Amino acid sequence: MIKLAVDCMGGDYGPEKTVAGACLILAERTDLYCLFYGDQERIEQEIPHDADCSRIEIIMSDEEINNEDHPLKAIRKKQNSSMVKALKAVADGTADAFVSAGNSGAIFTGSLSIIGKLPEVKRPASVTILPTTSKVSPHYFLIDSGANISTKPEHLVQYGKLGSKLAEQMLGAENPRVGLLNIGEEDSKGNDFTKEAFQLLSDSKEFNFTGNVEPHTLMNGTHDIILTDGFTGNIMLKSVEGMAESILNELLENLIINADLNDDMSKTVEAFIHSSIRRYTNEDAGGGFILGAKAPVVITHGAASTTMFKNSIDLAITLKESDAFSSLNE
Amino acid sequence: MIKLAVDCMGGDYGPEKTVAGACLILAERTDLYCLFYGDQERIEQEIPHDADCSRIEIIMSDEEINNEDHPLKAIRKKQNSSMVKALKAVADGTADAFVSAGNSGAIFTGSLSIIGKLPEVKRPASVTILPTTSKVSPHYFLIDSGANISTKPEHLVQYGKLGSKLAEQMLGAENPRVGLLNIGEEDSKGNDFTKEAFQLLSDSKEFNFTGNVEPHTLMNGTHDIILTDGFTGNIMLKSVEGMAESILNELLENLIINADLNDDMSKTVEAFIHSSIRRYTNEDAGGGFILGAKAPVVITHGAASTTMFKNSIDLAITLKESDAFSSLNE
Repeated sequence: MIKLAVDCMGGDYGPEKTVAGACLILAERTDLYCLFYGDQERIEQEIPHDADCSRIEIIMSDEEINNEDHPLKAIRKKQNSSMVKALKAVADGTADAFVSAGNSGAIFTGSLSIIGKLPEVKRPASVTILPTTSKVSPHYFLIDSGANISTKPEHLVQYGKLGSKLAEQMLGAENPRVGLLNIGEEDSKGNDFTKEAFQLLSDSKEFNFTGNVEPHTLMNGTHDIILTDGFTGNIMLKSVEGMAESILNELLENLIINADLNDDMSKTVEAFIHSSIRRYTNEDAGGGFILGAKAPVVITHGAASTTMFKNSIDLAITLKESDAFSSLNE
Repeated sequence: MIKLAVDCMGGDYGPEKTVAGACLILAERTDLYCLFYGDQERIEQEIPHDADCSRIEIIMSDEEINNEDHPLKAIRKKQNSSMVKALKAVADGTADAFVSAGNSGAIFTGSLSIIGKLPEVKRPASVTILPTTSKVSPHYFLIDSGANISTKPEHLVQYGKLGSKLAEQMLGAENPRVGLLNIGEEDSKGNDFTKEAFQLLSDSKEFNFTGNVEPHTLMNGTHDIILTDGFTGNIMLKSVEGMAESILNELLENLIINADLNDDMSKTVEAFIHSSIRRYTNEDAGGGFILGAKAPVVITHGAASTTMFKNSIDLAITLKESDAFSSLNE
């Protein structure tokens, strides 16, 4: 049985999406047990009548950590929040993994102070699984996608090493191709940070570093792992997701309103565009996770839909089951 | 008569796209005169038989600056290149503005050393005009989109001031909304660079600084100008353009191959998607320009199509005609 601690109060919608999403996957996987942390009444409202209640446990919490909260202060002071309680359940072994759509800074801080980090990791990072248009390499890891603003070049070497282990297992990549995010492909390109990182990554022989790579190239499935500092990674992440969401929704609207398609055609076109939206706004992949925490911690969008939250739970299960994640712990 | 110096040898295709694109707009605007710099034979091949040759002048050059060249060395050593000769024509007043799809580092370096920079500008930047999905605010300026890797916070204050003048004229924006690109909206967000820049921008009362802004928000037309350092700006630019190009082309292919649309429907859908591609890969806007050079210098993509090159010439004309650009010179 896999036991997940779900912070049901996180995100813009709370239990309406988190509990609903979790119950979808509970119905599919009979080896899954969920601990729901949050407002009992609101959680109960979202559990379907036909759910298998023997695999659901509700743990009341009367505090919430919201997006305006300062991460460190919130984790210290809101000991009765759904987030802190759920993280503690993972720390004491009651649960195997943690999932939340809440304040990502607080999740990051909390998971390191409550669950703890792997001893060899200097500074944990967040990993987001991003889509490509390639059928052979449909996904890659973006590390760091926003956890650390002050990443140092030597941290990237560690991310390359740990990320390669995970990419082998999770993406099925053989000898994962690791690139450094940059504004040009030439070795000498970039700012002080990328120049120093390029040198350190080139010197390291522990993984397959392929050199600098520009953001637009990645969409072709050229890489399995892209390394960058948390600031640049977060800008890239929000740029690609924002672009995809905006232009696909605009296209959908234009085609439905103006293109004068018949009903059948309209439905077909809609289905194709919706499928692109799910893929390129990261709804399919479910979100990101922390590299360097002792146990799987999954962070999904505050605005995650029921489907996206379901997929984030799926990601937590994959991480728990993945040999790679346990091997990082050795 | 507006006189443009066109570096015909720049870009992945040379005269095939540059001369062809320029001739399209020469046919539309009888007040335009083009000086074509490059290989005479190849240029002549691309000039249509019905072109008005009284407004075309070919200036032979037997050297080319390509993308592998080191910007500074190339500008110094390749004095007979189409790029250097065209820049000199602007510097000595023979032409009003410069357009190229060539090595952007060399264009930047060359325009500052040959044409010169505005006396008050500490460090020129590149401006890219980016599209939004908003009908009210369909475009915004991204400054710096990649010219300077080592932008300093105080440079952004200058870009905000000069950019506001240009946005009023070129985008028709009243009291242009200036945002700082960041990974969160709160005042305290970001790295050392954004924190210092935020303070300086807040203190400056010369333009309408509205605070931090995240990349995905921009697509809604919330801003007229986004300020950032050249590294981050270039990452964002290549992220959004790469995403748009990849997913729209994939969608087009999927719909044409798999959606079983009838011929009419298929053509309609194709037309809509092609229109999105032109808009969101920046073909419509034509490229970017240098903020802080004494005369208009337009830089377009190396892979620019004939249409995109035509639009980049249109941008050079707009810059030349714009009161704002001359007022920067005062």
